Amino acid sequence: MDMKKISIAIIVIAALMSVVLAAEKKESPKAAAPKAAAPAPASGATSTTFSVVGSLAGAFIFTFLWLLPSSESHNPSAKWLISSLQSGASVICQSASSKMTTSVERAQYSDRVPIRSIILRPDGGSGLAGQQARVGGWVKTGRKADKDAFAFLELNDGSCAGNLQIIVEADKGDLGQLVLTGTCLQVDGVLKLPPDGKKQKVELQVEKVIHVGVVDASKYPLPKTRLPLELLRDYVHLRARTNTMGAVARIRDELSYATKRFFHERGFRYVNTPNITTSDCEGAGEMFQVTTLISEAEKLEKNLIKNPPPSEVDVESAKLIIKQRGNDVAQLKSAEQDGKIDYSQDFFARQAFLTVSGQLQLESYACALSTVYTFGPTFRAEKSHTSRHLAEFWMVEPEMAFAELEHDMDCAEDYVKFMCQWLLDHCMEDMEFFADKIDKSCIDRITMSAKTPFARITYTEAVELLTEAVKNGKKFENHVEWGIDLASEHERYLTEVKFQKPVIVYNYPKEIKAFYMRLNDDSKTVAAMDVLVPKVGELIGGSQREERYDVMLSRMKEMGLPIEPYEWYLDLRRYGTVKHCGFGLGFERMVQFATGLDNIKDCMPFPRSAGRADL
Amino acid sequence: MDMKKISIAIIVIAALMSVVLAAEKKESPKAAAPKAAAPAPASGATSTTFSVVGSLAGAFIFTFLWLLPSSESHNPSAKWLISSLQSGASVICQSASSKMTTSVERAQYSDRVPIRSIILRPDGGSGLAGQQARVGGWVKTGRKADKDAFAFLELNDGSCAGNLQIIVEADKGDLGQLVLTGTCLQVDGVLKLPPDGKKQKVELQVEKVIHVGVVDASKYPLPKTRLPLELLRDYVHLRARTNTMGAVARIRDELSYATKRFFHERGFRYVNTPNITTSDCEGAGEMFQVTTLISEAEKLEKNLIKNPPPSEVDVESAKLIIKQRGNDVAQLKSAEQDGKIDYSQDFFARQAFLTVSGQLQLESYACALSTVYTFGPTFRAEKSHTSRHLAEFWMVEPEMAFAELEHDMDCAEDYVKFMCQWLLDHCMEDMEFFADKIDKSCIDRITMSAKTPFARITYTEAVELLTEAVKNGKKFENHVEWGIDLASEHERYLTEVKFQKPVIVYNYPKEIKAFYMRLNDDSKTVAAMDVLVPKVGELIGGSQREERYDVMLSRMKEMGLPIEPYEWYLDLRRYGTVKHCGFGLGFERMVQFATGLDNIKDCMPFPRSAGRADL
Repeated sequence: MDMKKISIAIIVIAALMSVVLAAEKKESPKAAAPKAAAPAPASGATSTTFSVVGSLAGAFIFTFLWLLPSSESHNPSAKWLISSLQSGASVICQSASSKMTTSVERAQYSDRVPIRSIILRPDGGSGLAGQQARVGGWVKTGRKADKDAFAFLELNDGSCAGNLQIIVEADKGDLGQLVLTGTCLQVDGVLKLPPDGKKQKVELQVEKVIHVGVVDASKYPLPKTRLPLELLRDYVHLRARTNTMGAVARIRDELSYATKRFFHERGFRYVNTPNITTSDCEGAGEMFQVTTLISEAEKLEKNLIKNPPPSEVDVESAKLIIKQRGNDVAQLKSAEQDGKIDYSQDFFARQAFLTVSGQLQLESYACALSTVYTFGPTFRAEKSHTSRHLAEFWMVEPEMAFAELEHDMDCAEDYVKFMCQWLLDHCMEDMEFFADKIDKSCIDRITMSAKTPFARITYTEAVELLTEAVKNGKKFENHVEWGIDLASEHERYLTEVKFQKPVIVYNYPKEIKAFYMRLNDDSKTVAAMDVLVPKVGELIGGSQREERYDVMLSRMKEMGLPIEPYEWYLDLRRYGTVKHCGFGLGFERMVQFATGLDNIKDCMPFPRSAGRADL
Repeated sequence: MDMKKISIAIIVIAALMSVVLAAEKKESPKAAAPKAAAPAPASGATSTTFSVVGSLAGAFIFTFLWLLPSSESHNPSAKWLISSLQSGASVICQSASSKMTTSVERAQYSDRVPIRSIILRPDGGSGLAGQQARVGGWVKTGRKADKDAFAFLELNDGSCAGNLQIIVEADKGDLGQLVLTGTCLQVDGVLKLPPDGKKQKVELQVEKVIHVGVVDASKYPLPKTRLPLELLRDYVHLRARTNTMGAVARIRDELSYATKRFFHERGFRYVNTPNITTSDCEGAGEMFQVTTLISEAEKLEKNLIKNPPPSEVDVESAKLIIKQRGNDVAQLKSAEQDGKIDYSQDFFARQAFLTVSGQLQLESYACALSTVYTFGPTFRAEKSHTSRHLAEFWMVEPEMAFAELEHDMDCAEDYVKFMCQWLLDHCMEDMEFFADKIDKSCIDRITMSAKTPFARITYTEAVELLTEAVKNGKKFENHVEWGIDLASEHERYLTEVKFQKPVIVYNYPKEIKAFYMRLNDDSKTVAAMDVLVPKVGELIGGSQREERYDVMLSRMKEMGLPIEPYEWYLDLRRYGTVKHCGFGLGFERMVQFATGLDNIKDCMPFPRSAGRADL
């Protein structure tokens, strides 16, 4: 053993170690998450660790063997040791690189094997050939073959977009029933390699049918053929079984998980702001009222129908009570009390609404825990019949103390990039579906947004660019001048045409923004920022909040807002005030950005809009 | 180099590797998460990896040095190599064991250093002595010392329960202001070791005061001394700054993160069920109505005040419109239309409510994606003034297809255990606070629940045990016999006295349970299950759902339920029906279980109850 060998060995090991360390470091934000929603807990973390251990063990064993003076290998026990080590090393390296088990993975809390864990393996499932498996799912398509001797079924269990091909022989079940789209099936079988030339890598030969949930094909509303998304909205209770809505559900799930990861890993605390509220964040008044006033008389009536009183006299007196209650409601808006309703009789003893944003309440937590966020439903009673509006939608809202507008923009940009990268790392099967069927540019758009720094321009610069575009012949429906609220067409021009990437516009005129945004030194603009992205336009709206009590008070008076309802909010500026900022991301818009779906109603499992609230 | 040495070396390395691997495997479900909400992304994952690499590298270097024949160490370059390797190994081992950096960690999106990242280090921050740091937070307590030459301040930024001690000299700021409880402060300073005998391991000597948010002590509602929790509920916008509510917020955050992790890692997809709904899951009718009917007239009035019309004539005609609208509302409940309100004028063109549970809608997704869950707000318009009820609360609801009651119980038990273990691994600082100030048994309770298998008994067995207890002299307020709904006192007797651990009671009489629960073969009971835990009683309620169309239909008729509103729900049984089950966990009850707080209103940031909805 000479010094040269030792030195080279050390250098090789050091180099290997640093490569592994660097790779881990780079990968760590996502590596810690399971790559797939595999049934085994934390499989991602385990496999990462395993690859580190594998690589290091491999490097060590390699060096160790190489350092052994050749003379010693003449010793028979040394020879055995060396050969054992070599085979051991090869096993370790193999497992580390393929990351696959050789047996099926059962779902937890079910006897079935998720189809995902079969067909989404790197080998497409071929490595499982010969294994027994129980699977369950719904038939996407089915056909009988070989004079009805058996049937081919495409089975989907929603764990992934892909289907598992199932082969059932006629003696195993009623093939005429099994082949119908929508049939639920649970079967035991053996995985086997299909004949050469088939696109699937594995299929299941059924040995026993465990359960069949039949379908009357003449009544089932979801045929084999693709229905327009608009029509599917009439079947919100069934549409999750379609390819598109299944993929939307998985994308939503992954984006919400990415959201949790992003904020948790950065020290943000999740706070549940109230949904029933007595504050109006935007001061816009487009709120739903929450009340028990109207329904009380009706409830009484319903109870009487369910539990009829024993005698006619009781019925009469009950009817009197109903009438009395009815009159109460009728008098809600009577001339007494200046035409105001007496809300002391309502559930909360005052008028209550559904929240339009958790921001104001969230600020009270930011002024105590420093970094917080909320992710919950928000509600707008806007009667707009567009493809961009929902009456109920989900919003992600972080709020940070000791932070200013630039921090806000940094956080917003990182968050959007993190979600885009997450989609590329975890949702490629579904993203490819959207690229194929809905919007061929969606993967490119998400890839670009994950990697390219966002443009940042002031509102003033944005207006200049738009004015220049108009000069050069661009036609907008809405007139462009300093002071206007940017319309969707303006936003999309900036992000889609001018910059061709996400753009953050900041420092808006105070006249078009809310009272809580921090007044800039120019006294004309406020420290607001919007993130505009291709396809969607405004994805995020945020601002630094006004932390100066006097400035906020005079802004409120200037805008004619009543002070009393905001006294608690002013308290945050009275007692231990702090610079802080935050933003809101419309979660359904993010889903739209990812999938390219045209109508936001398809980005939500159960959409609510003017005139429509199914289920 | 002899064979014996080589063999021993191999055995030692193999042993070390298996120990490391085993440790990693055991730790993996939680190791992948940051141990603390540290600002660096995935610091937990990184440090885990680092400890693996460190251990292995250490083992390798140790073996390598030990294997080197002593003769070769006479060579000077070999000596240098060996000594470098030794010091390198010691550095690696040190870092791997302490998992600490030697410089402060800045928060992302702020210039400050979170106090947590200083004082929650294993060394309490002493290893950072000499470092510059900018910190921000709110003064918990402060006092002047040495004839007002300087002040000691306890600063808290909500990143953890603990405070950082700050020392400010009189020339750096107005000490009289700085010492007041509630003052917000951002300062630059140097971390230094305190004099011997102090409990803190590090303190900050201020060099520059960056920001002060003052407090008028005569008006600030939160004094230095502890206020009763009941009184604090009058200040929901400020109470997050108290020790108790700050700790509740961090526990809620960690439990919600644990929830996401638990379900995501087991292949469950997160589905947002609607909050505004036209279905009534429980059929109980205790629902809030969501409407825009009442507020429309008021809105018009408000707009007129904000934007007064130019002439008297306009005012008159506007008043007419208001009157007309007022009449519309008054006529809502008029004698016409059989006393029914004409909801075609309401926002959704029908009567709409706030959801009491997402279960029914979630089932439609389980019957497509197989394993799903929801985590969202739910609402009950119950006028109960107890310490156990909220009008708005959060619920976690998983739903699993191809699964039966036993799977449901397994999942519920695992989930509760997972959360308990998470609290022990991630929230000990706050748990110790609750054990100290609120409920001294809370850590024992959570530890026991994390490690002990839950008892499982049928409802019939539960009634037998209660009857036996009564025979032996136990007094209950509610009479015990087969058929009763277990009261809270019964539940707590079973879990706290009889079993002294969590208990799952299953197979309840059908008469006391909802129509959707699966009828057992005895035709008397349904496949329902409740998880009862000490301190709280019922934490989880769940069931296998009736998947048989005919059985469900006859149950609904038996119970007198209208069929039409549930047609969509019956569709799930008509088309491709599947065995499935699920449960709901009241999130605030879980917080109560963890913290031992007596009133559930303190387990929620912004509690809503009959007569009360602040902010």
